Order: sequence, then structure tokens, then C-alpha cells
Amino acid sequence: MTDGGQSRRSGPGRRAGGSRTREQILGAARTRFSEHGYGATTMRAVAADAGVDAALVHYFFGTKEGLFAAAMALPFNPAEIVGGALGGGLEGLGERLVRGALEAWDGPHARAALLIVIRSASSHDTAAAMLREFIERGVVGRLAAAVTGPEAQLRAVLAGSQVAGLIVARYVLEVEPLASADRETVVAAVGPTLQRYLTGDLYGGAGRPAAPTPRV
Amino acid sequence: MTDGGQSRRSGPGRRAGGSRTREQILGAARTRFSEHGYGATTMRAVAADAGVDAALVHYFFGTKEGLFAAAMALPFNPAEIVGGALGGGLEGLGERLVRGALEAWDGPHARAALLIVIRSASSHDTAAAMLREFIERGVVGRLAAAVTGPEAQLRAVLAGSQVAGLIVARYVLEVEPLASADRETVVAAVGPTLQRYLTGDLYGGAGRPAAPTPRV
Repeated sequence: MTDGGQSRRSGPGRRAGGSRTREQILGAARTRFSEHGYGATTMRAVAADAGVDAALVHYFFGTKEGLFAAAMALPFNPAEIVGGALGGGLEGLGERLVRGALEAWDGPHARAALLIVIRSASSHDTAAAMLREFIERGVVGRLAAAVTGPEAQLRAVLAGSQVAGLIVARYVLEVEPLASADRETVVAAVGPTLQRYLTGDLYGGAGRPAAPTPRV
Repeated sequence: MTDGGQSRRSGPGRRAGGSRTREQILGAARTRFSEHGYGATTMRAVAADAGVDAALVHYFFGTKEGLFAAAMALPFNPAEIVGGALGGGLEGLGERLVRGALEAWDGPHARAALLIVIRSASSHDTAAAMLREFIERGVVGRLAAAVTGPEAQLRAVLAGSQVAGLIVARYVLEVEPLASADRETVVAAVGPTLQRYLTGDLYGGAGRPAAPTPRV
């Protein structure tokens, strides 16, 4: 990996240059994500827009998910939390996902960053579409890939919906007693929900209900 | 119940007058809810602010929850959905709650109204506090009152968090395949989650985990 020939610079100058380059990439990423959506944006295109080598974008942000999270000013990358939880396999996955989400959102600046994302997604259709694509591909899709069966994507979205609701109730609306409940209490209560959605019996043994009005 | 002596008026004049009075009450309600919060606002105080008889506020909006929902321009009253689901008792409550929520949110104008509420609550702390109080008292509190045990309020909030996440994923972000899944599929998959939160074994038989750092 090359760092664009900047390795010979050192000290504060290096850091200031790196920080400027980073901001330049983030600006290009925000523009491209919002104009082209999450799916159609590539690290290479962002690098070209920012006038830097693609390797530098990888160096700063690792993956496209990481670049998106940084462009949204999120203090962490949701895709990484999913990846970390998946590292332990399917057993206990529900609890690890809840714990990972709570650890991330309990951290500083997360609520402020989330409010900005929510405000933007509820005001602009393009921002909402971009966020949806990121969630579908970068977060839910990653989870779905680890779950087997024809309903893997639905299972993963249902798990995501519970995590999203937990975040809204605990961190955005701060509804009590959930907002101040200790982390392991929430993990113990909500973990089984995600585990059932992902690997359990989704319809209580009854099979998927027939659609009420089949199109003929 | 008196209707403020308006019963002798009839026809379009009556309706126009009623519509003006209704808007007057809603304006007063919006101001009072946002200045005093949900809990401290009474139907009587709103009536006084609007310069109408309190009975007229009851006549138009039924309950304080109904007044709040109308003031937020929601096309339905969430507290009524909870009340309707509770009418059938605790058995099957989870499925009835999910079905009631989906029926309400599948209706027209619901998404647009919700986006306005979300935008407002994510931009103004007072709007968020008002919404939190409404949810805690009018929606979750009502559910908690029907559930027994020391953790009734936590159980109700957890159920509420899953419904909130479902609404965000299906109606706000429209994440697929959840957004276009048929209603009964979602009811069958998510109903058991709410049922466990409300009446089931909350911590998988292990009891509430000890808090990691007890205060001595």
C-alpha cells in the first residue's frame, strides 16, 4: 500500500497534511454518496473526486462502510460492530450484537451524531435513500450473509429493526427505565429477540402466513 | 356534556364554526404542550387558553392522548391502538399490538406525519421531551399498567422499542424486504417478541443480571 508519497514528511506538518487530505476525501465522499447513493459510489471514484490516490482512501477509512460512517460523522462504523459480533459465529450472536450496539452508542458524541443523521434523513429523500442503502447493504446485508435460509434478509432486517428501536428509545427519546437500565440487563432481555429472528423459529412453528390477497 | 350552546346552529355555518374552534383548540394545545410538557398540560388549561368550554375539548378530542395526537397531526391516536389491543386481555396481546400498529401506519398520511414529528423531535429538545412524556405516560404507561410484576414498565418500553424500530425500518427507511412484507407475515414474526417482553421470561430463566458496578 502506498500513502501517496507522504511517508517522508513527519511531525506536525505531516499530521496537518494528513488531516487536510482526510477532510478533502470526506468532502468528496459526502458529495458523491448524496448524488449517486451508497451502492453506486466506489472508493476509487471518491479518490478521483478528491484528487488523491485510491490507496489513501483505503488507508484512512479501510472500507466503503468505514468511509460512509466517517462521512456521516458517526463516531464508529456500524458494519464493524456487525462484523465483530459475527466473528463469534451464530451461537450467542443475538447477545453479542446487542452488546456491541450498546457499547458503541453508550460512547461520547454518538447521540449528537445520530441526531444529525436522523434530522437529515427525515428532511431529505436523498439522505434517507442513502442511509437505507447503507443499512441494506453494509449492515443488514452483512448479517444476512451469515444467516442461512430463504428468509435470511428478512431475518436480518427484523434484527436490525429491534436494534434501531432500542437505539431510538434508549438514546434518542431516552424513555425510562430503558434509558438508564444497565447494559447487561438490556443484553439479557433483547439478545434472545435477535437470536430468534436470526436463527430461531420465525413464525412460531406455523410457517409463513399465506398472503391475504394473492394476486392472480 | 354541553357543546357551548352551539347545538342550535346547523349546516355549513355550524361546521365552519366547529372547524375554526377545533383549530383554535389545537393551536392552544400545541403551545401549551411545548411550553409545559405533556404531563403538566390539562384539557382544562388548553380550553382556557383557547377561550372555550373544557367540555368542547373533550367533545372534539376525547382524551388528552387524543388531543396530543391531533396536535402532532398524527392521523390516529397511538394510545387508542394500545387500548384496543389491551381489550382482548394478555393472551395474544403481542400479535394484536403489532397488527394494530401496522394497520395504523399502513394508512395514508401516516408516513408524512411521522416525518414531521421525527424532524421536530430531532431538532428541538423540548419537542423530544414532549414526545418522550407522551410515550412514557400515554402509550407505554398504559401498556405497563396491564402487565404485572416489578418490571412492568421496562417490559412495556422494550415492547415499545420493537414497535418503534419496526415503524422506522418499514415506514421511514423502507428497508426491504420488510417494507413490502405482507402484514400478517410481520405480525407472525414480531408478535412473539412483544409477547415475551410483556408476559414471558424476560431474561431467559437466568434472572436479571447483577449490575456490574453496584453503588455502595
